[in-house]
Amino acid sequence: MEPLTVIKVGGKIVEESESLNQLLNKFSTISGAKALVHGGGRSATRIATQLGIESKMVDGRSITDKDMLQVVTMVYGGLVNKNIVAGLQTLGINALGLTGADLSIIESDKRAVKEIDYGFVGDVKQVNDKMLANLIQLGITPVMAPLSYSKQHGLLNTNADTIAAETAKALSKHYETTLVYCFEKKGVLFDETDDNSVIPTITPTLFEQYKSEGIIQGGMIPKLENAFNALHHGVHKVIITQASELGNNSGTTVILA
Amino acid sequence: MEPLTVIKVGGKIVEESESLNQLLNKFSTISGAKALVHGGGRSATRIATQLGIESKMVDGRSITDKDMLQVVTMVYGGLVNKNIVAGLQTLGINALGLTGADLSIIESDKRAVKEIDYGFVGDVKQVNDKMLANLIQLGITPVMAPLSYSKQHGLLNTNADTIAAETAKALSKHYETTLVYCFEKKGVLFDETDDNSVIPTITPTLFEQYKSEGIIQGGMIPKLENAFNALHHGVHKVIITQASELGNNSGTTVILA
Repeated sequence: MEPLTVIKVGGKIVEESESLNQLLNKFSTISGAKALVHGGGRSATRIATQLGIESKMVDGRSITDKDMLQVVTMVYGGLVNKNIVAGLQTLGINALGLTGADLSIIESDKRAVKEIDYGFVGDVKQVNDKMLANLIQLGITPVMAPLSYSKQHGLLNTNADTIAAETAKALSKHYETTLVYCFEKKGVLFDETDDNSVIPTITPTLFEQYKSEGIIQGGMIPKLENAFNALHHGVHKVIITQASELGNNSGTTVILA
Repeated sequence: MEPLTVIKVGGKIVEESESLNQLLNKFSTISGAKALVHGGGRSATRIATQLGIESKMVDGRSITDKDMLQVVTMVYGGLVNKNIVAGLQTLGINALGLTGADLSIIESDKRAVKEIDYGFVGDVKQVNDKMLANLIQLGITPVMAPLSYSKQHGLLNTNADTIAAETAKALSKHYETTLVYCFEKKGVLFDETDDNSVIPTITPTLFEQYKSEGIIQGGMIPKLENAFNALHHGVHKVIITQASELGNNSGTTVILA
């Protein structure tokens, strides 16, 4: 199978024009088929505040009410997504911005109300991998916003990491897929106080070992569990790195063996 | 050639959920290949005001400064476009939202500064008719926002009527294209005070006659001139009607003979 790289970048990177331009330049150097999944960052919260819309939280978790759904639709689906698309076109990459509703690419279920009513939040049910593969086959680079779609509820706010993982899993039927998570550090670190102590490779065995030794802890545990989940669903490898290192063959590579 | 209908709807219709839903239902009944071009309406101005961004006018013309460009990118490319796409998907139409930057579908030149500096406004230079025709061939319904793209300047604000006309002209190489302009009246009227006095057909000869008789005047003259321009560039027919009449075979049909 041909290689494909699915790259997820956080909202912070795409929010400022300098880091965005750097990212897009790095992204353009990655050879072969690729897709970009972006977060929304704090722009949505900032714009919501300016519009007099309160960002609701329950037990430390964000709630997407009807007004906030409109804001994330504007900001993620419009402002952020289209600025990335325009920037990539200028670099000669034939980008196409997509929410989950476009071509029904990412279908989700509205999250069931249990202890918390998250509001208009979607859990991914199905990725239209055939349509995405068709687009990629035409030389198109999908640029995906963190919004999914439910036939019953319309657009739904969805975590960008999840969109990236589900997209990579689904495209593994058609491509040898590498999933790249860009985050603030150069990779998973042996020593949190040393930015250059990147762990080059993590396998399930090493993961257990590093957890028991306390080297891997906190928020990195679910991140790596998600990486292994993607690998168990057909993704070839997962790379955790910094956006500025894209294409440098650095960062932490997560593989099954 | 197969028939294709390009429908332009104004911002007012797509702004309110009731009229939007009615429009989408009507749109879904139109048989054959189709594309929808939407305006932005007053949402952009309203949201700009709420964000503390001044809507600038010079000599009664809107100016798109950098801040306003961000707002129209959010509102036209995000809020309005994606709500239409999601609504159409729910009706079983495989919609794909597009700005001019997506797939470089609509390339434009930033309007030259003469007496007025319009700011980030684009005049359409080229429609990527082959890519659009490819998408339509795949059963996709393009939903186009009034934003074009320049390699040098990125996204640019562009009149929705122009996007619709240029798209219809370009697609006339591939389809027998009907261009439908939805506006507030049921068609071009014999008597402005009688909403039912729709002129059924206008040819160049009748246009000259009605102008000389004062039946057609004011803003309707440039609208019809644009319609004839489209016909001279390969569009099969132009229909001017009300959104609520879509699919009813009513309104004013503009043809060359």
